[in-house]
Amino acid sequence: MSVVVVGTIGYDSVQTLRGEVSDALGGSAAYFALAARFFSPVSVVAAVGSDFSSDDYRLFSERAIDLRGVERHEGKSFRWKARYHDDMNRRETLGLELNVFARFNPTLLPDQRRSDYLFLANVSPELQSRVLMQVANPKVVGADTMNHWIENERAGLLELMKRLTILMLNDDEARMLSGEHNLVKAGRALVKMGPEAVVVKRGEAGVLHFSQDGVFAAPAYPVEEVVDPTGAGDTFAGAFMGYIARVGRVNEAVRRAAVVYGAVVASFVVESFSLGRMSALSWEDIAQRHRAYNELTDSQSPRWTSP
Amino acid sequence: MSVVVVGTIGYDSVQTLRGEVSDALGGSAAYFALAARFFSPVSVVAAVGSDFSSDDYRLFSERAIDLRGVERHEGKSFRWKARYHDDMNRRETLGLELNVFARFNPTLLPDQRRSDYLFLANVSPELQSRVLMQVANPKVVGADTMNHWIENERAGLLELMKRLTILMLNDDEARMLSGEHNLVKAGRALVKMGPEAVVVKRGEAGVLHFSQDGVFAAPAYPVEEVVDPTGAGDTFAGAFMGYIARVGRVNEAVRRAAVVYGAVVASFVVESFSLGRMSALSWEDIAQRHRAYNELTDSQSPRWTSP
Repeated sequence: MSVVVVGTIGYDSVQTLRGEVSDALGGSAAYFALAARFFSPVSVVAAVGSDFSSDDYRLFSERAIDLRGVERHEGKSFRWKARYHDDMNRRETLGLELNVFARFNPTLLPDQRRSDYLFLANVSPELQSRVLMQVANPKVVGADTMNHWIENERAGLLELMKRLTILMLNDDEARMLSGEHNLVKAGRALVKMGPEAVVVKRGEAGVLHFSQDGVFAAPAYPVEEVVDPTGAGDTFAGAFMGYIARVGRVNEAVRRAAVVYGAVVASFVVESFSLGRMSALSWEDIAQRHRAYNELTDSQSPRWTSP
Repeated sequence: MSVVVVGTIGYDSVQTLRGEVSDALGGSAAYFALAARFFSPVSVVAAVGSDFSSDDYRLFSERAIDLRGVERHEGKSFRWKARYHDDMNRRETLGLELNVFARFNPTLLPDQRRSDYLFLANVSPELQSRVLMQVANPKVVGADTMNHWIENERAGLLELMKRLTILMLNDDEARMLSGEHNLVKAGRALVKMGPEAVVVKRGEAGVLHFSQDGVFAAPAYPVEEVVDPTGAGDTFAGAFMGYIARVGRVNEAVRRAAVVYGAVVASFVVESFSLGRMSALSWEDIAQRHRAYNELTDSQSPRWTSP
């Protein structure tokens, strides 16, 4: 069953300790789709401008990512410019142009409306709700959000939360939305606000997954060279949702396994600027790092007892 | 078999978001001993001043911690004053008085010299070496260090490292000592400098354990209220070394299990100022949180598949 994702596709200009890129392909739906496709068919709902090239289309279509739901409008695509601090955990947004995305009011295709798996990437709660309303009877609805919406569209976000299966957000956003400084209290409070599960993203510190069944802590896979953290959260979400769609049901075991695949796939995206590493990634790369991740987090295997 | 620990015992004045304490019992050897004692007999090598009270002695002796190696000198005990930033991950040292510790030149007792398990808490590499020289044939030697020694006594530290089984240090110190910005590269480089294993402490982000056998990532147990992070690293070290001494041999499996006990016991110490929580802790508390920690990090148990 396809995962439907609504989000941005556009061009990013990013500076990090390791260099910089200008107008490189990016956007939440782009990162999400390139990760989810390893687990499940993906169907994208987004808007691009007339600057969106046939090479860019091809990057997705060659990987069997469905772009029928990507509207093309006259004008420029969504653009974002940011600079990361040296520790790669903090960044400064230098510029944001909505461009054609400002007029984005999607109408889902008939097959998208019947989808069981929907992910609402980080757009306004109002737009997230408009998309959600069009899907008849989804089994799993995931959503991302950010500080801007928590501050400025809180009511809409609270309403949306009641209809979510999974909410993803970073640690500062979890504190802001829950009003709890402590992350454990914040996560538990957010679960009470609607979603079955809440995934708190903590960058290098990994993720905390909260649900009625307890807390799950998954470390980030420690990569040898972080080139650009952009898209790590969307990539995590793509692998997470894709895995759940592949399994076809959701419970604590499935969500925990999905978190691990999320962490594994997100560890690749940061190894290059833009979608470089993701577009070259193979299933064997993922399977190999998944084994390495299991060794990384394994405290009980008899295999370590040898010498 | 006893674990012998050399380090400080003194009085700390600490301010955090949650309040403050003045002249509260602390010091690396104090935190270490109160954690290690749950797993193994502990014998402390330290110096205290004439201000060290009989109540303070009793706190240790009632818990069967051996203080025969604690010298008492005329003058004041070691004192440390610090303030934590709001996020509890950074602190500022406001004052440090070595006091009687400045004249500390320990002579180990005959049974301490025959010890198999030695921990050199964060004192100068020169003092660490002087203690190590007195121990005839230790099976496991652990040591902690800090930025001050890395900057100012680098040669002595490098020499000491060749004789260590386990080096513990925080992430910034691992970068500084190895010259590698990336933590994975840093950890691997440090293992090549002598120790069988290197434990990189990352506060809320947990620890990374490096050895020839691979990398092990252990998240911190997410506590609901961090009151005072002081002593978390020493408490981790105490449980880690105590567990290894209890098992009586060391390999990757034992070190990984020791890391988990370290993370579990360290999660208690931060719940109160000073040694408050540690002095009231029971083995049942540890066993219960150890089970909770295993659930926290468990991505594969069939127990989660229920609903």
